Amino acid sequence: MWTMTSAEQKKPAPKDPWALPDVSGLTVGVLGGTGDQGRGLAYRLARAGQRVVVGSRDAARAEAAASELNALDPAPAVPVAGTDNEECARRSNVVIVAVPWEGHAKTLEGLREVLAGKLVVDCVNPLGFDKQGAYALTPDEGSAAQQAAALLPDSRVTAAFHHLSAVLLQDPAVERIDTDVMVLGDSRADTDTVQALAGLIPGMRGIFAGRLRNAHQVESLVANLISTNRRYKAHAGLRVTDV
Amino acid sequence: MWTMTSAEQKKPAPKDPWALPDVSGLTVGVLGGTGDQGRGLAYRLARAGQRVVVGSRDAARAEAAASELNALDPAPAVPVAGTDNEECARRSNVVIVAVPWEGHAKTLEGLREVLAGKLVVDCVNPLGFDKQGAYALTPDEGSAAQQAAALLPDSRVTAAFHHLSAVLLQDPAVERIDTDVMVLGDSRADTDTVQALAGLIPGMRGIFAGRLRNAHQVESLVANLISTNRRYKAHAGLRVTDV
Repeated sequence: MWTMTSAEQKKPAPKDPWALPDVSGLTVGVLGGTGDQGRGLAYRLARAGQRVVVGSRDAARAEAAASELNALDPAPAVPVAGTDNEECARRSNVVIVAVPWEGHAKTLEGLREVLAGKLVVDCVNPLGFDKQGAYALTPDEGSAAQQAAALLPDSRVTAAFHHLSAVLLQDPAVERIDTDVMVLGDSRADTDTVQALAGLIPGMRGIFAGRLRNAHQVESLVANLISTNRRYKAHAGLRVTDV
Repeated sequence: MWTMTSAEQKKPAPKDPWALPDVSGLTVGVLGGTGDQGRGLAYRLARAGQRVVVGSRDAARAEAAASELNALDPAPAVPVAGTDNEECARRSNVVIVAVPWEGHAKTLEGLREVLAGKLVVDCVNPLGFDKQGAYALTPDEGSAAQQAAALLPDSRVTAAFHHLSAVLLQDPAVERIDTDVMVLGDSRADTDTVQALAGLIPGMRGIFAGRLRNAHQVESLVANLISTNRRYKAHAGLRVTDV
């Protein structure tokens, strides 16, 4: 006969990793939403029915980007709004950071107060480029995501959406994005929320891929995907197998 | 009318990335072939018909490992041999380095001469472990593969086979390994050879993923896959999409 020990009886059943929260009520802001990656993510989330606000240093440019996305065929299910980065952060529950690495620290420093308490999703890839192609840069904090966590001590910082092709994201004719999204963070509730958001986009799954301290290699792997794209004339993404 | 410029006429057509060499005549050595990863790789390559020699510091242990692999059902198509690391390197055309990170530098330093001129495939993942799980270590040279290149200046060093589950590799009941193999290196001929070897294993493709200077993030990503495995009770691998 098999008997549970008292410790086993007290231990809660492991939570189903696929039991993700309902995120339909959340507004998603995209800082740097006029860049290719930011525009593409804004478009895909809005097309999936999420309320999205594009942010930019220049509100007029953000409004123009939002108008362009709303004019696509098929247009987003919920119209995208555009405003400056600060107002974008204020209006949003979840804030995706899609600014160029060069402006990463400065942008976040200026938004520390408005981002307090919010869920921040860093998708920035610190890369350098030379004649041999792309290579990884190593921020002093370890990664872009850890830099965000250091600059935003009152925010809940996660990392995700690194390996997506901006070309595919922005192409309205592409209906499914055949790529999983590695989601990193130190709070289960927060990574679950980001996984649920990623899962809204047809073809994508949000897959938990570790704590924030392991973000550097996920960010840097884009250098490898760039080499792969060049060799195969592809828009390479990553699917996690056996999950 | 469209006319080729003289520069375009001289430029060779880009080589088909799927035109890989015939590697059937190559003997593959696996240094550290008594460890889980090394045993698994030796088994899969031999099962696919490749001639394989398992190496270990202790020749008797290598012979025992080879005997165990040869006794599996299904047994390797070509029997695996076992011998000490130096003899293993001597007998092989291609040498996979699957030793623990802790012994990496010392093992390679002792094999510098016998590995001269040979194709070396580093699959070592420098990781640390603590209560929060696995994390990436950063070798002074940048990565295990770059350390190998520094210690073996007369060898042709590549990096590959990082993301494979040793459990799946060693399970004879598993017929297909649903994982691509990222192959890195600075010589096209060498990465093509390693890609061809990876492609011998059912379910796998060898995919070019950049120069050796971008090996660190590929090695370190195993820390993330360990987190994923824990969350999903899986043996996660990676498939490169759109390629």
